[in-house]
Amino acid sequence: MRWIKFNTGEGSHYGIIEGTSGEWVRRVRGNPFEGYEIEDYRVAYDEVTIEVPFLPRTFYCAGLNYAAHVIESAKKAGVEPKLPAAADIGYRANNALIAHGETVIMPTDASVVHYEGELVVVIGKKAHRLSESEALSCVLGYTIGNDVSERNWQRSDRTFWRAKNTDTFKPMGPWIDTDFKVDDAITTVTVNGVATTRFRTADMLFGIETFISRMSHYLTLYPGDCIWMGTDGKSPDLKDQDVVEVEISGLGTLRNQFRKNS
Amino acid sequence: MRWIKFNTGEGSHYGIIEGTSGEWVRRVRGNPFEGYEIEDYRVAYDEVTIEVPFLPRTFYCAGLNYAAHVIESAKKAGVEPKLPAAADIGYRANNALIAHGETVIMPTDASVVHYEGELVVVIGKKAHRLSESEALSCVLGYTIGNDVSERNWQRSDRTFWRAKNTDTFKPMGPWIDTDFKVDDAITTVTVNGVATTRFRTADMLFGIETFISRMSHYLTLYPGDCIWMGTDGKSPDLKDQDVVEVEISGLGTLRNQFRKNS
Repeated sequence: MRWIKFNTGEGSHYGIIEGTSGEWVRRVRGNPFEGYEIEDYRVAYDEVTIEVPFLPRTFYCAGLNYAAHVIESAKKAGVEPKLPAAADIGYRANNALIAHGETVIMPTDASVVHYEGELVVVIGKKAHRLSESEALSCVLGYTIGNDVSERNWQRSDRTFWRAKNTDTFKPMGPWIDTDFKVDDAITTVTVNGVATTRFRTADMLFGIETFISRMSHYLTLYPGDCIWMGTDGKSPDLKDQDVVEVEISGLGTLRNQFRKNS
Repeated sequence: MRWIKFNTGEGSHYGIIEGTSGEWVRRVRGNPFEGYEIEDYRVAYDEVTIEVPFLPRTFYCAGLNYAAHVIESAKKAGVEPKLPAAADIGYRANNALIAHGETVIMPTDASVVHYEGELVVVIGKKAHRLSESEALSCVLGYTIGNDVSERNWQRSDRTFWRAKNTDTFKPMGPWIDTDFKVDDAITTVTVNGVATTRFRTADMLFGIETFISRMSHYLTLYPGDCIWMGTDGKSPDLKDQDVVEVEISGLGTLRNQFRKNS
């Protein structure tokens, strides 16, 4: 099942995608986290404006979680690559979220802007002290994120606040897929239609179960929390008008244009 | 005016504190962020359970923002103290919030737990690109935070996730004061009634206006965001059953007991 949050000019609603090629959106009353009723109303998928699928209660992000990305980042910084020793989760911020189809605005003083295509785990149930084998029981589904990053600020600032969380730097969507399996999935990122990064989505240093189990030992996960699982490979420096698509096979494609603020 | 969020066993409501010694809570319909109507109902302050005053939309935290705290932390870590060069904001997480009067639970594997008494700025209006002279126009009011920290995890982990954001590690409250002025305020932290830290609340390396102006250059602040302004001085290692009070003169006192998880 695929959940989208959409607007047809009459307010924001959750819907379920229907039809042999996903051509309809069935509107529901309620939401996938607290419960819903299916309504007797559907609208063509092409006619809706897709919104950010949910505003995270806490916005978690794994950061460094694929080997090639760690090595590449270290090389650019001129330091020895150091793989993370444990599943230590980080954070991103809600102000930066935009929907599938919306525009990433690169501020005038941003210089080196990169994409990071990521699998996003969406928490559906309150969870505390789950073992690794129980971990996926709290997951509602999956969506796609682009952890847009300004590399100079990432190096110069004491925190990642503007490098990672400038307004519009966190595209997420287009939908939440409740049936997706990560096992054989491939993440492909394209710029203007040309594939520039490709990796096995499951090639994480620490998997989803490991993160959820370790996190939930110290903290409670809540419905509407999300965990961005990190990225692999490298990005070219993005330019004004570039269109970036993050595709995860079996899950969908998140598409956003990048514009330089004038 | 002082806003509290409270419960009398009949659900959660916002209220305004009334009476010559703050002995009443006047219930309102709505909330201080989106609008409210005063109800014809009040309850004795002593009879309400105080809740976390709001769940932040984004939970910002200045981290290092007072000189003595930076120097003390560096000394304990055996490194040269390095004052932050710019107002780079960090983040904390909603899972860890507890109310005035609730208990901080120190996990069995936590060893060195410290308090950090902090002024909390509560954002009331959407704000983007404010100058320093405009910065306070988006502020609804102020509350108090205790940025509880486990120092071994703070050194060992790649991020602050469990050092700062273990469940119950972020007491905040008891109310939002809309008239507080930081100028001459003194922050005093006591453990079991004995003052252990005292500092001028305004002695920040970067002030509230500087943080808001710099942050809002890159990001939009929203009603319900908050900014914890950092702490000064040092904390003793906290023990089972210690009671910590963070008092900011003119604003109030945030009180929480610490318990070792058994």
